[in-house]
Amino acid sequence: MSGSLVIVGLGPGAPDYLTPAAARALAEATDLIGYSVYIDRIPVSDHPQTRHGTGNRVEIDRARHALMLAAEGRRVAVVSGGDPGVFAMAAAVFEAVAAGDPAWRKLDIRVEPGVTAMLAAAAEVGAPLGGDFCAISLSDNLKSWATIEKRLAAAADGDFVIALYNPASSARPHQIKLALDLLRSRKAPDTVVLLVRNAAMPDVRVITTTLAGVDASLVDMRTLVIIGASATRLLARDGHAPWVYTPRGERDTF
Amino acid sequence: MSGSLVIVGLGPGAPDYLTPAAARALAEATDLIGYSVYIDRIPVSDHPQTRHGTGNRVEIDRARHALMLAAEGRRVAVVSGGDPGVFAMAAAVFEAVAAGDPAWRKLDIRVEPGVTAMLAAAAEVGAPLGGDFCAISLSDNLKSWATIEKRLAAAADGDFVIALYNPASSARPHQIKLALDLLRSRKAPDTVVLLVRNAAMPDVRVITTTLAGVDASLVDMRTLVIIGASATRLLARDGHAPWVYTPRGERDTF
Repeated sequence: MSGSLVIVGLGPGAPDYLTPAAARALAEATDLIGYSVYIDRIPVSDHPQTRHGTGNRVEIDRARHALMLAAEGRRVAVVSGGDPGVFAMAAAVFEAVAAGDPAWRKLDIRVEPGVTAMLAAAAEVGAPLGGDFCAISLSDNLKSWATIEKRLAAAADGDFVIALYNPASSARPHQIKLALDLLRSRKAPDTVVLLVRNAAMPDVRVITTTLAGVDASLVDMRTLVIIGASATRLLARDGHAPWVYTPRGERDTF
Repeated sequence: MSGSLVIVGLGPGAPDYLTPAAARALAEATDLIGYSVYIDRIPVSDHPQTRHGTGNRVEIDRARHALMLAAEGRRVAVVSGGDPGVFAMAAAVFEAVAAGDPAWRKLDIRVEPGVTAMLAAAAEVGAPLGGDFCAISLSDNLKSWATIEKRLAAAADGDFVIALYNPASSARPHQIKLALDLLRSRKAPDTVVLLVRNAAMPDVRVITTTLAGVDASLVDMRTLVIIGASATRLLARDGHAPWVYTPRGERDTF
């Protein structure tokens, strides 16, 4: 088959964070598939290019549509916010290949990485991911809440910094409260908590608080939540929000 | 103070993965500070720019040097491979600020995120980070081996995909073997293991193996090691290495 499929990471929002490799993959595609909000950010190509904008749910349908077009010989780009391999479209495409037409395994499929949301969120405040960390999606659309609880508990017991993706949506407003309750039962009340909404966008909003003080109702689908490790610290400064960082280790470097 | 300091992520290697925001931060700097191998990748600026290339150790000395130059009014860019907030220079800079001259807290310090190594490594093979995952540095230069063991155990017990940074160096050839032994005691022998060397570079090398079969002597400082979760799967294809992916959840999507 001559068609191809590339799953492209757009980065955290502003075009300033799109890599040149990803920009080229988008420019070369004959077909762009993805959530309309992402598709609308992509500059118009100088060759004919079909845009297939969709809603932001049912990733697997988008993946199958993309594979069918590629199997017809099109050069398809599936777009994801952030990095496509992190709670985004890349896994959905390979799930669709595994369960789909055996001919799809002969397609040229590749992934263009991007700056994922937790990196952009961390950069807004300093270096909160400076130590060991983990990333957990709170969406229980495809996995059980028991699995999520097991991972939250393990992450707390390992004293990882924890980045929470998909912390809440209109269909799932309660998970973030349950997750914070679980973490409160295992971590100190003064553990640093960051709510970073629209990282790397002009309207970014950062709330720096604690596990005891965090207001779960401020978390929505555009928020990345970072829960500190025991070592995560604030660095106060005049007239600005504090910097937040996690030292690289527990030994003194001075 | 009028000086500034930006900690810039170069991404995984090739200039194709440098974001436009990071490229602009580098172009605007009066001083570039970093490991010589990274500094040498940066295009020459059209204005006077001093390059301070160093070895790749003692990050804290580089951070202090950068802060001193910024305090003198220079526009300093500290460069990191990958993302500066992930086992790289950003935490070192904030550690240096916390322990250093109080005037440094008045500096304009910011972070330009980049594509970190695990994202580039994952993109080489498919979507192995498609589920919940964690990132652990095996370097015990600044943290105790007991802390590393605690986190490896927690990551295994939580059934996370595990990305191992700094898995080995000439000064620390043995940690990766110890880490794999610990993981073997807690995870299935057929757990997928990926050794990705020089991700996103022309000489990338991928080894797809298992926890039972992995040869630790093939791991060096340019290798990113990914240990699968129980759900991580291979997808065989003709004439190529298999794709590797972790489904987004344990529920069937078809």
